[in-house]
Amino acid sequence: MLELYIANKNYSSWSMRPWLVLKAFEIPFQEHMIYFDRERSIGVFKQKLLAISANAKVPILYDQELKIWDSLAICEYLAEQYPEYALWPKDKAQRARARSISAEMHSGFTQLRTLCGMNIRAQLADVGQRLWAEDSELRQDVARIEQIWAERPDPDAFLCGAFSIADAFYAPVVMRFQTYALPVSASSQRYMQNILQHPAVHAWVEAAMLEGRWVNYLEAYQTEAE
Amino acid sequence: MLELYIANKNYSSWSMRPWLVLKAFEIPFQEHMIYFDRERSIGVFKQKLLAISANAKVPILYDQELKIWDSLAICEYLAEQYPEYALWPKDKAQRARARSISAEMHSGFTQLRTLCGMNIRAQLADVGQRLWAEDSELRQDVARIEQIWAERPDPDAFLCGAFSIADAFYAPVVMRFQTYALPVSASSQRYMQNILQHPAVHAWVEAAMLEGRWVNYLEAYQTEAE
Repeated sequence: MLELYIANKNYSSWSMRPWLVLKAFEIPFQEHMIYFDRERSIGVFKQKLLAISANAKVPILYDQELKIWDSLAICEYLAEQYPEYALWPKDKAQRARARSISAEMHSGFTQLRTLCGMNIRAQLADVGQRLWAEDSELRQDVARIEQIWAERPDPDAFLCGAFSIADAFYAPVVMRFQTYALPVSASSQRYMQNILQHPAVHAWVEAAMLEGRWVNYLEAYQTEAE
Repeated sequence: MLELYIANKNYSSWSMRPWLVLKAFEIPFQEHMIYFDRERSIGVFKQKLLAISANAKVPILYDQELKIWDSLAICEYLAEQYPEYALWPKDKAQRARARSISAEMHSGFTQLRTLCGMNIRAQLADVGQRLWAEDSELRQDVARIEQIWAERPDPDAFLCGAFSIADAFYAPVVMRFQTYALPVSASSQRYMQNILQHPAVHAWVEAAMLEGRWVNYLEAYQTEAE
């Protein structure tokens, strides 16, 4: 049985990616949740992770003795292990595109990631409006993402046709766009709806909403008392 | 014929990765050099790239009409196109490890990348010594890299056995460690020597040394007059 170690569903965008892939393709796995500490200084989260993996980051996948870490490496590993499913698109050109946009997300969009941390249950439209007005790098990140989304083969399809690893990589972005209510095109909103209605995404979001844990250092814009 | 678009060999660590893979496995390709502007504000580099690819970043690979961008996606594409070569290790466990450490490099080590930009011809041991003393995050990045290198299967081998994509991803780090003379273990120095003596790396470094172009915004620590 595959075992996936993840952190809080409300906050951990890196955890969300391989989890969605496993769920979407109905690959059996056991989920292990390691919650973030309330304060980073507590250090229990890091200690627990270090006992599992020297890089000390979620997500981590175990396939028996074999450890694979980093969301993209885990997804490539799963694609290789389950060639009967199209985790990457079957079409060669769409597969090349899916890999390109996933790797682009993996190493880029720093401003969006820094300013608009994933926080599924939060509603931060006011914050989003202010950031949007103030920060041109954020607007550039969003513009590039909208361009990628607009190039999907069919407006009612996912990024490279059927749901693939590429969509799992952009699903956390959909959550950010929603939380911060960033102003995007009708075409982008349509893609966001397709993602939000996907059963795997729906299941993750539902669990995030019920999770009820507050992580102070991941809440840049609100205090618990509110 | 494959066509690879890259930027200055002295500075462009992202370009170096797929170029090394192509050279190391003797895959025929045509190289297209797009030089960085002397000042970022000039904007010619960006314009040239935008004419080729909407993400406007090097490296970009063309296989006939098919465009693949981002160093990791290009390497995965090549691994798929050339199954007769072991671009990723043939052994399943080493392949999983190679993908994990490559993806970890792709999205991480921000402090090393920010403070110690690749600059092959420069000798910045004094700068390196100061950064090392001052910056604990830099020391943490280096410690994690040394840990990854130390786990190679054989001290005289590459990261996952024979030279693979994983080594192409860590070769720019070797160049940084050398330029800034960061203090690393004997085992790490041995790996660095293996990388520097590899014919593909040697060819890249030689071209970088002869390139002779100055890019002001990539020279944080010296002025051209020196």
